[in-house]
Amino acid sequence: MARALRLADRGKYWARPNPHVGCVLVRDSAIVGEGFTQPAGGDHAEVMALKSAGDAARGSTAYVTLEPCAHEGRTPPCSQALIKAGVARVVVGLRDPNPKVDGGGLSDLVAAGIDVTEGLMADQVELQLAGFLLRQRRGRPRLRIKLAMSLDGRTAMASGESQWITGADARRDVQRLRAESCAILTGIGTVLSDDCALTVRDAFFDDEFLPPPERRALRVVTDTHLRTPSSAAVLQGAQPSLLLHAQGAPCTASLANVERLAFPLVGDGLDPAQILAALAARECNEILLESGPTLAGAMLQSGLADQLIVYIAPVLLGSRARPLFELPFDRMAEALRLRLLDRRQIGADQRFVFESQKAG
Amino acid sequence: MARALRLADRGKYWARPNPHVGCVLVRDSAIVGEGFTQPAGGDHAEVMALKSAGDAARGSTAYVTLEPCAHEGRTPPCSQALIKAGVARVVVGLRDPNPKVDGGGLSDLVAAGIDVTEGLMADQVELQLAGFLLRQRRGRPRLRIKLAMSLDGRTAMASGESQWITGADARRDVQRLRAESCAILTGIGTVLSDDCALTVRDAFFDDEFLPPPERRALRVVTDTHLRTPSSAAVLQGAQPSLLLHAQGAPCTASLANVERLAFPLVGDGLDPAQILAALAARECNEILLESGPTLAGAMLQSGLADQLIVYIAPVLLGSRARPLFELPFDRMAEALRLRLLDRRQIGADQRFVFESQKAG
Repeated sequence: MARALRLADRGKYWARPNPHVGCVLVRDSAIVGEGFTQPAGGDHAEVMALKSAGDAARGSTAYVTLEPCAHEGRTPPCSQALIKAGVARVVVGLRDPNPKVDGGGLSDLVAAGIDVTEGLMADQVELQLAGFLLRQRRGRPRLRIKLAMSLDGRTAMASGESQWITGADARRDVQRLRAESCAILTGIGTVLSDDCALTVRDAFFDDEFLPPPERRALRVVTDTHLRTPSSAAVLQGAQPSLLLHAQGAPCTASLANVERLAFPLVGDGLDPAQILAALAARECNEILLESGPTLAGAMLQSGLADQLIVYIAPVLLGSRARPLFELPFDRMAEALRLRLLDRRQIGADQRFVFESQKAG
Repeated sequence: MARALRLADRGKYWARPNPHVGCVLVRDSAIVGEGFTQPAGGDHAEVMALKSAGDAARGSTAYVTLEPCAHEGRTPPCSQALIKAGVARVVVGLRDPNPKVDGGGLSDLVAAGIDVTEGLMADQVELQLAGFLLRQRRGRPRLRIKLAMSLDGRTAMASGESQWITGADARRDVQRLRAESCAILTGIGTVLSDDCALTVRDAFFDDEFLPPPERRALRVVTDTHLRTPSSAAVLQGAQPSLLLHAQGAPCTASLANVERLAFPLVGDGLDPAQILAALAARECNEILLESGPTLAGAMLQSGLADQLIVYIAPVLLGSRARPLFELPFDRMAEALRLRLLDRRQIGADQRFVFESQKAG
């Protein structure tokens, strides 16, 4: 199963919206087949493993990180493929909470006389598929807020000048976060001040596992009044883009061909929960927020941020520089407590992963 | 020598203004004597080791972290004590840069026919005695700025509310920093808003190695206009206090018995370099700055801060809260780059030690 988990990781940049799953077939203490989720529409991990095993699959034990699907989706059900191949035993990491599966795959196998075990290394599968599982169980994607800051908690000078606070290694790490994500979310403020492209760039990856640009993370801008210029970097290139705006916002001719989604105006902006629900409806599992203090503060205060991923550079930008979040607290009692999940040094910078204790 | 370095550490809270030194006497591959610097006026490490060895010192090798003194100070010269005891060989970590010694101890030993080796584990002695060495070589104490901040770089709410950002373990660690210091420096703003006591408290230590309160770190307030109330916690108790103020500042009757030191007014405050020179003249080796953003920012900009010791708590205090430093930078080019020396987790907090790349 440990090997199946590692195999699963190879599909993490391209499997979306499917979960990235790994499968290992073992017979007589030898591995006879291996597979991991191929780009959506391609083989699931089980089918890839069965194909690689051929006749050797008969009588083998299949280790699969997630319950085999029982439904006809983009591909035929994997439970039937395992039965047809004559697999003798199936060991599953985690039951698939997708309502179309949810134990159905396991009962198909049991009904066919296959020995089924469930729950092996389930915690690791929970971590590996956190976004997918959250969407299936709660109807919303996982939201991770990425921040790059100075030691004194600043993200840019007051003028907006900000390149580069963190080092090259940290920026490479961010590329991996982007590639893992189904959508990268930012605000119109960041688009107007930084003209960020939010692309996943080939140069940072072994291209074997990266999908073509048109299947990489959706770049999403919360742009209440549709102020994004049609020349903005975030709208260029093959990687898809989406503008979220208020109903009735005037759309210039130059944005007519850009994909847009309208929301009712809530206060003077868009509602974080509605944004995440809309992205879940588009089968987004993992959202990476890379924005300025306003949108990041709003998302954090909404209680919908699951993780903060903070890169801290060994530099002081001073007291005039821009704050990390717009969080207008007045009393210590309002302060947001975080829980540290992970810390590591990346180049000269430190990366912290925190869980927001308010996340709902 | 490694053992001598560990022994030396036992004297670090009470040796000041002397360097805390360790000494081990070895004869026939066995330790026959050990010593470390006793409170000023008491035995130096060598004398304590010779006493513990008695006759066994004859023909032994002495491992001493710092060159034995050659001058009559509060105690007779250690070089003579080693010669009289009949020590055969002396291995020294580092030459003592004190102009009254500076090789004189070593030449006394050589002249008496003792075999002398210099430089064993010299780097470790440099770290252990950094403040003392800096004062001897450059005429100024080592300045370490201690900061306790939230993840978003804030030290208190705008109202001043601040207790407690970091956890109990971090506060205990700060007690050790205070105990190691010759002086704890703060600003009048912090005295007026927090009424901090800046004491080294017995409860945090094994009392064996802590000196009595009257010999603990000098509490120093930069108080240009002498606004410290005589009831301030920083003036109470047996631990000594000192107010630094501008020449001609009006002194109320209630402060008449408080120790004070006057400086020429520079701009609208006191000059950081003059403050440190005055503390060096009082034989202060190690200064710990625990202040608000104004004094910390001024010290940092003066280029006289040797280290930043930053405790980061996993909490967000929001964008209205107080900044870490008053550093009015406008351009990235002004940003202060730091170099990470050490990082560790202390309770739920992270402690970072940085070297300021501007320190002169």
